[in-house]
Amino acid sequence: MQSIRTVCSKISQHSLFTNIIIGLILINSILVGLETYSSIVERYSSLLHIVDRLLLWIFTIEILIRLIGSKSIGSFFKDPWSVFDFIIVLSGHILVGSHYITVLRILRVLRVLRAISVIPSLRRIVNALILTIPSMGTILLLLGIFFYIYGVIGTMMFQSIAPEYFGTLHDSLLTLFQVVTLESWASGVMRPILAEDGSAWWYFVSFVLIGTFVIFNLLIGVIVTDVEKANNEDSPSPTDVKLNELQAELQEIKQVLQNNKK
Amino acid sequence: MQSIRTVCSKISQHSLFTNIIIGLILINSILVGLETYSSIVERYSSLLHIVDRLLLWIFTIEILIRLIGSKSIGSFFKDPWSVFDFIIVLSGHILVGSHYITVLRILRVLRVLRAISVIPSLRRIVNALILTIPSMGTILLLLGIFFYIYGVIGTMMFQSIAPEYFGTLHDSLLTLFQVVTLESWASGVMRPILAEDGSAWWYFVSFVLIGTFVIFNLLIGVIVTDVEKANNEDSPSPTDVKLNELQAELQEIKQVLQNNKK
Amino acid sequence: MQSIRTVCSKISQHSLFTNIIIGLILINSILVGLETYSSIVERYSSLLHIVDRLLLWIFTIEILIRLIGSKSIGSFFKDPWSVFDFIIVLSGHILVGSHYITVLRILRVLRVLRAISVIPSLRRIVNALILTIPSMGTILLLLGIFFYIYGVIGTMMFQSIAPEYFGTLHDSLLTLFQVVTLESWASGVMRPILAEDGSAWWYFVSFVLIGTFVIFNLLIGVIVTDVEKANNEDSPSPTDVKLNELQAELQEIKQVLQNNKK
Amino acid sequence: MQSIRTVCSKISQHSLFTNIIIGLILINSILVGLETYSSIVERYSSLLHIVDRLLLWIFTIEILIRLIGSKSIGSFFKDPWSVFDFIIVLSGHILVGSHYITVLRILRVLRVLRAISVIPSLRRIVNALILTIPSMGTILLLLGIFFYIYGVIGTMMFQSIAPEYFGTLHDSLLTLFQVVTLESWASGVMRPILAEDGSAWWYFVSFVLIGTFVIFNLLIGVIVTDVEKANNEDSPSPTDVKLNELQAELQEIKQVLQNNKK
Repeated sequence: MQSIRTVCSKISQHSLFTNIIIGLILINSILVGLETYSSIVERYSSLLHIVDRLLLWIFTIEILIRLIGSKSIGSFFKDPWSVFDFIIVLSGHILVGSHYITVLRILRVLRVLRAISVIPSLRRIVNALILTIPSMGTILLLLGIFFYIYGVIGTMMFQSIAPEYFGTLHDSLLTLFQVVTLESWASGVMRPILAEDGSAWWYFVSFVLIGTFVIFNLLIGVIVTDVEKANNEDSPSPTDVKLNELQAELQEIKQVLQNNKK
Repeated sequence: MQSIRTVCSKISQHSLFTNIIIGLILINSILVGLETYSSIVERYSSLLHIVDRLLLWIFTIEILIRLIGSKSIGSFFKDPWSVFDFIIVLSGHILVGSHYITVLRILRVLRVLRAISVIPSLRRIVNALILTIPSMGTILLLLGIFFYIYGVIGTMMFQSIAPEYFGTLHDSLLTLFQVVTLESWASGVMRPILAEDGSAWWYFVSFVLIGTFVIFNLLIGVIVTDVEKANNEDSPSPTDVKLNELQAELQEIKQVLQNNKK
Repeated sequence: MQSIRTVCSKISQHSLFTNIIIGLILINSILVGLETYSSIVERYSSLLHIVDRLLLWIFTIEILIRLIGSKSIGSFFKDPWSVFDFIIVLSGHILVGSHYITVLRILRVLRVLRAISVIPSLRRIVNALILTIPSMGTILLLLGIFFYIYGVIGTMMFQSIAPEYFGTLHDSLLTLFQVVTLESWASGVMRPILAEDGSAWWYFVSFVLIGTFVIFNLLIGVIVTDVEKANNEDSPSPTDVKLNELQAELQEIKQVLQNNKK
Repeated sequence: MQSIRTVCSKISQHSLFTNIIIGLILINSILVGLETYSSIVERYSSLLHIVDRLLLWIFTIEILIRLIGSKSIGSFFKDPWSVFDFIIVLSGHILVGSHYITVLRILRVLRVLRAISVIPSLRRIVNALILTIPSMGTILLLLGIFFYIYGVIGTMMFQSIAPEYFGTLHDSLLTLFQVVTLESWASGVMRPILAEDGSAWWYFVSFVLIGTFVIFNLLIGVIVTDVEKANNEDSPSPTDVKLNELQAELQEIKQVLQNNKK
């Protein structure tokens, strides 16, 4: 039993194993792309189905090998990327006979995301991007409060004037998201409302000013901080190299002094 | 009398007290959200009214406890956030019987902003954002002059061609704000005017070039400076750690020298 | 004669003198703003005219005082801001009787710009902004070549399909400027052309990709460099403070060593 | 034979030679600009043709001189810019008699790009910009996967609702590129689809959020890193100058100690 574990562990760490999986994910990607063309689906329907079933089973075997090859089941499920792989493959089996065809197809598309969990450099970047989210926590909360207040006020004031934009609180929040991306905020949203309610401009101008300013601060602040951190960690700066030299020289002087003493 | 002050001070600094207030602000937030749905307002009109009155009184008691618990009335009103809380609650009482229903409803929505004054991390971020405003003072004045000159010239030149965009100075300034956000500046504003006045392009192109350049400088300059400041203050850099080590070694050498001397 | 020069020099450096001029520029600003409202112009036509003439003469006297008060006529005209002030005022006199009413009115508006030459902090910021332009020289030339090539190719290919956007080289360059600001580049410009010429997407997508990337590099690169320079110059960093301490200690050690020797 | 090589080498490195080529490229640029005006083409057709042929031959001679003047043919073709010049000129000769008039004209326009290969400062900037591309490799791959998944899902879900935007996978990718530039993403693309499929908003909002966040990280991260690198390499910082001083002083102390010993 132990030997099987060792074999699986060796296989799962072999670069050929990883490369084959990357290749299969690529084939899976091309497949889901081809499936969007109805003419191809009609002609090769059964072939596509067979390849798809085949890929699912190969991925299942891959997960099993990695699961058996890991130190313990616990350590396998500790890595969020393994859990992600496991869920993607498992749900493929569970939903196979169901009638939720759209869900099944989306699942097949999401298998492309497995490229991230398999290619280390991609996994590192995504991990880094996800790690920036907690440091944005408070400012995202602030943005949330800001959106909510403007959403409620907007619904109250423009509900009857522009029902397609501010009909319900949910519509208003979507509209405010559109406004904060500056897309048609004036020509599409503000000007028609301004024609009915001449004082509506303060609502939009203040929202755009505050919103873009806070988001800019959020994005640039977080990113610049991250970049600087990464720079500091990555490689020793010329200053640090110099300092190490100085330290070595100080050591020498100390040594000389010790010798003098004797 | 003194004992009441001590009790109030203890209560107002207790974390449970803060958490309850945060919870009540959350309930208030949900309430103002629900009030935007007319079907809910119709069915639960009286219930919503009662809860709203209740919240106002609880907030009043909260402010009173904090007011009594503070060292002096002066110190309470020194903190702008306390003043903000006080005004929000007080105006709720003053306007209660009035006919300005919209104002009253907006006041209820603004109570959600109290989340900022109650949650310390939010208060810190907002304070930081507000503190960046003075350092932008001169550049904002420059932007103001720039907008005003283009506004007056735009009104002079396009008043009759495009009255909906440049009818009055006020309209022109709003249009220029739209142009500087790059929203429909060409398709919506410039091209129709260009059809009448073939030389109008220089007005818009120069405005977009100068405006976006100055604003970019403003935003990025201020933010990058802030981030760097924050980084320098936050944690000692590896360089500084190294320097401290060097200093320690120098001390050692000095000590050795002193001993040699003796 | 020398005494007049001294008096003028003293006057022109007095803060009250500057403040009065700032006040008069403010009045001039309000005036040109009011002149955009035709109802006001009709009623107070003669009054506006008189105040305007008065302001022009006061500004003339101001320039004369500063001219006389300067060390020499050469040193006065060395400062570009003085030249700017001089031209603005002089052209007001030259064009006074002419029929170019629009030019005259724009001149009056441009007098508002004198606020920059009078308020020192504004002058410093504008100088700083202008100083960044040379460092962008090469990249602006690159952008120019890039725009020109795309402009010529665009005119060649889409002249007959979309004459309003790519009719002449001049139109194309304006359209490309619109595209690079991302304003209606797809909905307004690309999609109608795409309906006629299915391969036009590569033209727009490549232009947007290259254009925004180069401009981003240009803007952020220049600005971040500037900010860093400014930071380095401004105040000694904590690292530098530390290094000074270390140097002082080294001096001490040297002194001790010298004393030991004796 | 050797002497010819020396002469050619001298000529090709002479600044006059470079300036003449820059001048000719400028003339070529003006020419291709003039050719977009059909009235000019009609009147000066033969003249334009002659000048164009002449320029092509001069450029051919220039390339030949540089080719002969280089150390070896291998070293000439090692520089990508020389290869670029060579291809541009060669293809002008190959395609001269062909019927691909549009291709020929685009070739003539691309000759303007030779300005980059001839002017050193431009070549340096373009090289620097190209060098940033590899460091964006992984994040561009990530963006590719992200676009592909959203493209496939979008085609699957909105193929029948909005065939002009999501008809084929290719259309979807183009639409997603438009959405990520925030151009008419809401007014043009999302809202019409939302009217048919009320749950489509999560697709667009999530795409905009993830897409702009990743691209922002990509652009700013890469650029800020580059700027910092450039700053570090450029000139020694005041810190480094100080460190060199400290090192010199340490050397002195060591010397003193050595002398003491003797």
